[in-house]
Amino acid sequence: MESDQSDKFIPTPRTTLKRRPQRAEYDRAAVYRILDEAFICHVGFIVDSRPVVIPTAYGRLGDLLYIHGSAASRMLRTLAEGVDVCVAVTLVDGFVLARSAFHHSINYRSVVVFGRAYVVEDEAEKNTALRVFTDHLTPGRWADVREPNEQELKATLVLALPLEEVSAKIRTGPPIDDDEDHALDVWAGLLPLSLTAGPPIDDPLLRSGIDVPDYVAGYARGRENTEQTE
Amino acid sequence: MESDQSDKFIPTPRTTLKRRPQRAEYDRAAVYRILDEAFICHVGFIVDSRPVVIPTAYGRLGDLLYIHGSAASRMLRTLAEGVDVCVAVTLVDGFVLARSAFHHSINYRSVVVFGRAYVVEDEAEKNTALRVFTDHLTPGRWADVREPNEQELKATLVLALPLEEVSAKIRTGPPIDDDEDHALDVWAGLLPLSLTAGPPIDDPLLRSGIDVPDYVAGYARGRENTEQTE
Repeated sequence: MESDQSDKFIPTPRTTLKRRPQRAEYDRAAVYRILDEAFICHVGFIVDSRPVVIPTAYGRLGDLLYIHGSAASRMLRTLAEGVDVCVAVTLVDGFVLARSAFHHSINYRSVVVFGRAYVVEDEAEKNTALRVFTDHLTPGRWADVREPNEQELKATLVLALPLEEVSAKIRTGPPIDDDEDHALDVWAGLLPLSLTAGPPIDDPLLRSGIDVPDYVAGYARGRENTEQTE
Repeated sequence: MESDQSDKFIPTPRTTLKRRPQRAEYDRAAVYRILDEAFICHVGFIVDSRPVVIPTAYGRLGDLLYIHGSAASRMLRTLAEGVDVCVAVTLVDGFVLARSAFHHSINYRSVVVFGRAYVVEDEAEKNTALRVFTDHLTPGRWADVREPNEQELKATLVLALPLEEVSAKIRTGPPIDDDEDHALDVWAGLLPLSLTAGPPIDDPLLRSGIDVPDYVAGYARGRENTEQTE
């Protein structure tokens, strides 16, 4: 199958945008950039015929999205059964402030994945997934820390969700006001927003003489899309 | 019913945390603080027996969460039927960097709401909901902009989700490492993260002589929980 992998995800009825199709993005690289910049996903699944949405962190390796947690987690145990799941990832890039209330909007980049996850049983792949996950949040961290021991690996459930039925939705650019509203005496424009790191805080139990590592002190999540132009 | 409203949400089987119950929060004021600081929710619902999760912005007034959008939106039209919905709201406060990979975590505050939404039909309440929504994202904005006209109100579907079956989940504080790992030569601590505003960008079509309003230039989302202590 891998040799068949194209540069674009193939739209399905579920991933085809009916409204504002110009905001749809199926390019694999563009989708991966969003998934690689964000790190929290919202996982939707069905319990007793009703929807449940739970936030969790994730990592990506190739066309797999990894999530993990305690082997006792209800969400993970449910997903481990191979049920239908929908995962959404959203980055907010800023407020779009128009002259009319109606045309206010948000610049954002979001990805929605439909599929079924499976349990990663192989111990080496499990360890790899945890490395990917850890370095997805703080690149460089894995090399510094104590790796999971056998007991910890056993207590951890790792799930992989294949990235097959996937779409992104992107809004960029300035407000789009009605022509007649341009004459109004109202400021209009963009207010950019981004997730930024503050100064690191030492663990109260930190041994003296251990400095904050560079990958923490200089932390910034990469953004390719800073210009917010259409 | 309103006179019955207590200071706390009553836990139900769906909102009772089985694991780490110390992270659960049912206090109404604490839940509302999270809902008022965040502005994006992830809405989970069922289409053709499968889960769908869609991000959207929201506002809150009392014990109602308002979402809105085009009357043509599939999500809104589905929710308008009164189907079961789950809405999750997540604020990320920082990375928790432990000495072991296993004890890495994220400081966050999240809210999950279960219920059924209904369509706001009354034109005055609809207008109020849109004001609440607009001022939730950028407080002060509504007073500046052109309010929706009749045609725009007609094109907009506003839904209200009663805040009844609700819980919050909060992790704060430093990493919790295993005792024997404290001897490791590894930095540990918190890396705070927050959504911050960059310099506003004028609409290219902005008339000259209109200044950026104070509520945009000085924009910051309130955080009561900056100290990240347990």
